[in-house]
This record gives sequence, structure tokens and C-alpha cells, in this order.
Amino acid sequence: PGLGEKKKMVLPDIVKAGDPVLHEQAREVEVEEIGSERIQKIIDDMIKVMRKAPGVGLAAPQIGIPLRKRKFVHMAGWFPGLGEKKKMVLPDIVKAGDPVLHEQAREVEVEEIGSERIQKIIDDMIKIIVLEDTKEYISYAPKEETKAQDRKPFDLLVILNPKLKKKSNRTALFFEGCLSVDGFRAAVERYLDVEVTGLDRYGQPIKIDASGWQARILQHECDHLDGTLYVDKMISKTFRTVENLDLPLADGCPKLGVR
Amino acid sequence: PGLGEKKKMVLPDIVKAGDPVLHEQAREVEVEEIGSERIQKIIDDMIKVMRKAPGVGLAAPQIGIPLRKRKFVHMAGWFPGLGEKKKMVLPDIVKAGDPVLHEQAREVEVEEIGSERIQKIIDDMIKIIVLEDTKEYISYAPKEETKAQDRKPFDLLVILNPKLKKKSNRTALFFEGCLSVDGFRAAVERYLDVEVTGLDRYGQPIKIDASGWQARILQHECDHLDGTLYVDKMISKTFRTVENLDLPLADGCPKLGVR
Ligand SMILES: [Zn+2]
Ligand SMILES: [Zn+2]
Repeated sequence: PGLGEKKKMVLPDIVKAGDPVLHEQAREVEVEEIGSERIQKIIDDMIKVMRKAPGVGLAAPQIGIPLRKRKFVHMAGWFPGLGEKKKMVLPDIVKAGDPVLHEQAREVEVEEIGSERIQKIIDDMIKIIVLEDTKEYISYAPKEETKAQDRKPFDLLVILNPKLKKKSNRTALFFEGCLSVDGFRAAVERYLDVEVTGLDRYGQPIKIDASGWQARILQHECDHLDGTLYVDKMISKTFRTVENLDLPLADGCPKLGVR
Repeated sequence: PGLGEKKKMVLPDIVKAGDPVLHEQAREVEVEEIGSERIQKIIDDMIKVMRKAPGVGLAAPQIGIPLRKRKFVHMAGWFPGLGEKKKMVLPDIVKAGDPVLHEQAREVEVEEIGSERIQKIIDDMIKIIVLEDTKEYISYAPKEETKAQDRKPFDLLVILNPKLKKKSNRTALFFEGCLSVDGFRAAVERYLDVEVTGLDRYGQPIKIDASGWQARILQHECDHLDGTLYVDKMISKTFRTVENLDLPLADGCPKLGVR
């Protein structure tokens, strides 16, 4: 098959921490464009990417076409991890079948960043979030944990131009993660009761009253649209690998749970 | 060969973010114990682990025997990354030859944490750092980068009970990483001129006047002895995967370089 056909089957990559698109303010979706093939395709892609991860939420900037594949110019940082550094420059063998490898051969010139093509990418940073939490996902976590988190299943939600308001001052501190920060978690304080208004994928107004875990997911995803990652809000001493998730908190950390 | 012999050949794992030992204050090495087989073995192990990584620095807490292998009790966080969660519970196939897998079968009881055995582990959090930077490591980085960073090779340094003092108020902002936070980097502001006093591995007083990149490494490693990771000091908006290291900084981030 031609490369064009091949590309249609490929889901967008999840943009990883460090990509400037994750720190940009997303723009509103225009009402007239909601019905467009492009927006509907983005929504479908977002749902597929979220489910494939799998994750319980995703924001549009997280599938913005990452510049990282094409730009290796400025200041590299230090080591430790010269091993990693080498991997960065050489294409990874296990990814050899991935069509994006073709793009990896070329570098974007600094001047090109203002170009129409790159601006189109930035234009993709629109305000769309998707989220869902299922009985199955929840079943993987211990009961007492999901109870403390007030975590209950909810069906797929697609929200365009979400506006989030807290409905009380109650907060809770729990660990959360992000598909753009692989392999790590940190404790983040979130409001327990929020209201989100916006449009559904057909342009109809929707309003969600959420509490507990769903409220956390909504805050996390809406933060993405403002260019904020959980690492900007975390209690840094709780930052840890997934493998270390259940280890005790360091001395002096606030306790997990409802505040 | 008996398991005892086997273990002698095994280097300690690097403790990853989230392990409480990384957030503990390390204790001083007693002058009388410096010549002991145990302390000399720790120093030798640290040098080997640093070189194997490879990295340019390592602090003793980073090879403290990690509790993580043996304790999967409390609150797991959320995912996204149910995939990862599953991996956490099942032993990873690729690590099947690793002797620590035997330990993974058992859980540490909460009551056991105060036990002599675990206290011995905490006792290992002693004040030792090792560092070195070589022509070869430096050759992997672009010239203009290492020049901006004032990064020059230096021979292996082993410092017991290091005491760090800044020698000027000059600072620089550059990316750094940590062997306990795999795959990520962030910009951290560090002093450019420091003096470190302490003891060498034979108990003799030493004093190092360091500037530039060596001063950064010394500050990073001494921070470990105080239970501080670079994520506690980083400019969070610069936090990124190694693959994204060379992407532009987000809007509003201070520029890299000497301040
Ligand atoms: Zn996220
Ligand atoms: Zn470190």
C-alpha cells in the first residue's frame, strides 16, 4: 500500500513532557468547525489513543504532532545516561517499522518554526478533552484505595471548550500520573467538587457535575489546555517511579486523602 | 556456585525516585570505620555503579538497598498506565536472572520497618559521594554546549562527609539528570563556584575548589546526602524526557546559561 494509506491507520503519538506544545495555551474550538471532518477525526483519534494507552483522560495538546522527532539542535543537557543520549541520536531498532522514522531523518531549521506547517501544528492545540473510567480499570486497583479516592466508573465524555469551576473548597491529595510523563507518579492536591461546562462533539452544550476521582481527572485534563502539567503542581518529594508507588511518603510530606 | 558467591558479583541497584532512602538525611561516616571492609566495599561499589550507568556522580543513598522490591502495600495511585501497573506486580521477564527476584516474592510487613534489618539499611545512608568526568563522556556532547557549561574532565573523586560552601553568588541554569530519575531532565539553577571539604577514602582531609560543571555535580550529589533530589529544585516547566531535551523551552522559562 502507498504510504498515504499506511498513515491513515497510524494513531498519533502521545506528546511527552518537554514538548513546547504541552506548555501552550490551547485555543477555543469555533462552533462552525465542530462538525468538520478534521475536528471529528481529532476526537476519534483522542478516544482511540486514550483507550490504547490505556488511560482515563487525554487532552488535545497531548496528540499535537511532536516537534521532538524532528529537531535536535540546541543545548543537550548533561548525562548520567550517556546510553540514553546515544539512543536519542540513533533511531531505535525496535521502532524501525514506524512511519515516523522517515521524518526523523530531517531536522527542522529554527527559521522553519514560524512556518505555515509548524503553525498548523500549533493550531492543533485546541480545547478538547476526553475522559472515561471503567469498571474494568477500577477493578485493577484495591477496593479500599478506590473508595478513599471516591473513584466510580463513568462513560466516555468528550468535552470541547471546557470551563471548570470548583463547587466547594474541599480538596484531596492523591497520586496521579500523566501519559506525557511515562513511568512516574506524584501526589497532587485537587478540588473534590467541580463543575465543567462546554460543548459535546455535536456542538450541544453540556454540563458535568463531578466529584472525587472524576473531578481530579477533569482538573488534570483542563490543566493541559492551559499548558500545565501535574509536575507543575505536585508535591515534589512524592515524585516517584510507578514501581515505587506504594512506598511510604518521605518524612514531612502531607498525608494522602481528603484534606 | 552457591548463592553467597553469586551475590558477591552483583552490583547494588540504583535506588529510584520514591524510595524513602532518597529523602533521608545521611549520617556522617565515623573516622574509625573509614578503613573498614564495609565502607571500602561501599566505595568500590559506588564507583562501579557510577561507571556502569554511566554517570558522572553518585551518592551513597542511591545504592541503599531499596525497600521497593519488597513492599507493595498501601495506596496505589491511578494509572494512566494500567500496563505499567501490571508489570509492577508480575516480575519482569527480562530481569529473570537477577538474584533480587528471590526477594521480590516476599512482602515486608509494616511492623518490620522498625526492625534491625531495615534499620541497618537506613544506616547505609552514609555521607559518601563519588564523581568523575572524562574526556570521553564530554566528547559525546557538542563543543559549544560543554563550553557554555564550563565542563572539563576531572579524575575520580571519592569524598566522605563532604561539606559544601558557595564561593561566589554566581549561578548558572542548565539541564541536569539523575540516575534515580531515569529518562528525564530538568533545568536547575546551581552555584558556579563552590568549595567542598571532607575526607578521602583513606581518611585524609581533602578540599576541592570547583567551578562550572564540576561545581554542579558536587551540589547535586551533596543534595542527595540531605535527601534532596533535583526535582525538588527544578524549574518544573522545563521537566522533560531525554528525547525532548533539545526542544525549545516553554514560554516564560528563564534562559539557560550563566545568570
Ligand atoms: Zn496528562
Ligand atoms: Zn542524582
